[in-house]
Amino acid sequence: MSDTAGKPITCKAMVARAAKSPLVEETITVAPPKAGEVRVKVMANALCHTDIYTLDGLDPEGLFPSILGHEAGCIVESVGEGVTSVAVGDHVIPAYTPQCCQPSCIFCQSPKTNLCPAIRSTQGQGVMPDGTTRFTDKDGKEIFHFMGCSTMSEYTVLAEISCAKINKDAPLEKMCLFGCGISTGLGAVWNTCQVEVNSSVAVFGLGAVGLAVIQGAKAAGASKIIGVDVNSGKFDLAKQLGATDFVNPKEVEGPVQKYIAGTMTKWGVDYTFDCTGNTEVMRSALECAHRGWGVSCVIGVAASGHEISTRPFQLVTGRVWKGTAFGGFKSRRDIPMLVDKCMSGELPVDHFITHNFEGVGKTNEAIDALHSGKCLRAVVKHF
Amino acid sequence: MSDTAGKPITCKAMVARAAKSPLVEETITVAPPKAGEVRVKVMANALCHTDIYTLDGLDPEGLFPSILGHEAGCIVESVGEGVTSVAVGDHVIPAYTPQCCQPSCIFCQSPKTNLCPAIRSTQGQGVMPDGTTRFTDKDGKEIFHFMGCSTMSEYTVLAEISCAKINKDAPLEKMCLFGCGISTGLGAVWNTCQVEVNSSVAVFGLGAVGLAVIQGAKAAGASKIIGVDVNSGKFDLAKQLGATDFVNPKEVEGPVQKYIAGTMTKWGVDYTFDCTGNTEVMRSALECAHRGWGVSCVIGVAASGHEISTRPFQLVTGRVWKGTAFGGFKSRRDIPMLVDKCMSGELPVDHFITHNFEGVGKTNEAIDALHSGKCLRAVVKHF
Repeated sequence: MSDTAGKPITCKAMVARAAKSPLVEETITVAPPKAGEVRVKVMANALCHTDIYTLDGLDPEGLFPSILGHEAGCIVESVGEGVTSVAVGDHVIPAYTPQCCQPSCIFCQSPKTNLCPAIRSTQGQGVMPDGTTRFTDKDGKEIFHFMGCSTMSEYTVLAEISCAKINKDAPLEKMCLFGCGISTGLGAVWNTCQVEVNSSVAVFGLGAVGLAVIQGAKAAGASKIIGVDVNSGKFDLAKQLGATDFVNPKEVEGPVQKYIAGTMTKWGVDYTFDCTGNTEVMRSALECAHRGWGVSCVIGVAASGHEISTRPFQLVTGRVWKGTAFGGFKSRRDIPMLVDKCMSGELPVDHFITHNFEGVGKTNEAIDALHSGKCLRAVVKHF
Repeated sequence: MSDTAGKPITCKAMVARAAKSPLVEETITVAPPKAGEVRVKVMANALCHTDIYTLDGLDPEGLFPSILGHEAGCIVESVGEGVTSVAVGDHVIPAYTPQCCQPSCIFCQSPKTNLCPAIRSTQGQGVMPDGTTRFTDKDGKEIFHFMGCSTMSEYTVLAEISCAKINKDAPLEKMCLFGCGISTGLGAVWNTCQVEVNSSVAVFGLGAVGLAVIQGAKAAGASKIIGVDVNSGKFDLAKQLGATDFVNPKEVEGPVQKYIAGTMTKWGVDYTFDCTGNTEVMRSALECAHRGWGVSCVIGVAASGHEISTRPFQLVTGRVWKGTAFGGFKSRRDIPMLVDKCMSGELPVDHFITHNFEGVGKTNEAIDALHSGKCLRAVVKHF
């Protein structure tokens, strides 16, 4: 037992008070974990565009005040009643897609999906599974949770089923990356699309997720990996990670899908990935998928209200349109495997970390870095 | 050798002279087959909505004058130079999706698709692979081919790679159905979606294709088969073929996809099929596919210019959007298998034939029958 077990913890956190405003560094109180919950010390948190999307007020379901953050590495401080799968001192990655593993959960029991809905509705409402929050500000007012994680805080509370326990030897300030974007890109290739040896692949958008797709495609043995971005400055790193060909849509005439399926290739590309969140790009990705069998995977999160469209002829002639959430990884089962692959040297991730900060109070600076366009991942080490 | 081999044949055919006009019964001349071609006597031809779609002027690539028809049973009258896979007297089903089987054809060599493009461009231009037509009218003027078949004629010429040779004992006036709609529906279930035992299925549109989907789903062991149609009069036959539940979208409040995924089922249906060609229905079908793994297959041919749309969230939460052409069957390999299944009693098709006519000249009457709404398939027996 830790000294703090069963007691409220007072600590620093960055609070999102309102949309379009900088986060506010505050002293908050984190209540002890209830039954089936785990309180963790957040050692490091990486910024992800989904945090910014909500902070920018673009998520119509975004709640304020809240504590954002969902890509973190943590150490268990105390556990609530009935928690058996993690213990004090364990290292965990919070998973916004939980894995309840219940026999009655058709999603956990199916090999086809990772979308466990066990705590989906409360998670979407910014509260813990019992419908209440564990965060209060200095005036005792409640602060909402975010994506079941809220890791822009020195301490947070997670559902037990959202805790992926990993190897204690793994550095949490790097392993935090497996909490969202990198896993999503790798899993889109390995799980959702199951890219085969010698396949051709096109990746739209060469941010962290797109680069993870390239890394995953190379590991899967893809022989042609086309990197697509409107910023040609991103091609160098993409090439280092395994991309073999490059297109800047601004530098080709006409729709980029016609250039890829027509000029660069005869019939299109076996697997295409949208990592931009732009619905027009999603269409391009679908339409340059290979006639007869091309699969296009939507990874990016689109702005609210935006829709994807295409002619049904594109599907009738053999293209498949799918999407992925957290790369199809079953979080508690698979994150430890990704960490082990990283530790063995098989899956390097250092190249994603372009910016480092110390102290949760530096989170706004990390957000600025992410906005700069030169950033893949900015990691804020809290301790 | 037949008496007529190597000579032009004069016979009756229905000529589509112009969009939106009835077909004209004419005496035409069918030239002998050239190298790699086969001339066949068309014993029976079934009407399909795709013929009507073109006759109604809705296909922007429709050509006139032409001989329509693509769902037929034929007997080989003579073969051109180099033809080895069929011989005079063989029974064949013309296939608008050919199967060239060449080692260089990546489509024929792939198990993932049936979309052999060997003669696609000339077929689309209404001519044989050498760029010319085999049909002339009484004034010696050329008449275009249609879908590589043109079976609304007593004789026609096919590419050898479009000839699926079948069991001679099978009645051609029934086997003709395997030339398009019925195969398409069955194959959407068996090949494109690979529906598993105990799956749930929803079928939108209970015409001949939709009923074939139901028949295929029952054969595949689906345990729940929901028939969806705005005409409740179609539910009886659907039930006989295996449908277990029914919805008339006109009789439920709100979008039918919410009724199916929400009221009838909790999370949606494992496999959904659009057999209407209506892009709004395609959207409904996708959106009531099961969260996490539902697959929706577009079978219907949409009107020119119409597009499908949805929120990308539908894909990100696990739904897959795909389409099928000729049900994914590799025509020359698989049509004979379907015929054999039918002959063994495993795959009855008699219920599809609601109208019979004798003589190619009765084709306009068959079209009227198809328009009546009470018709599944109208078969015109030419001889």
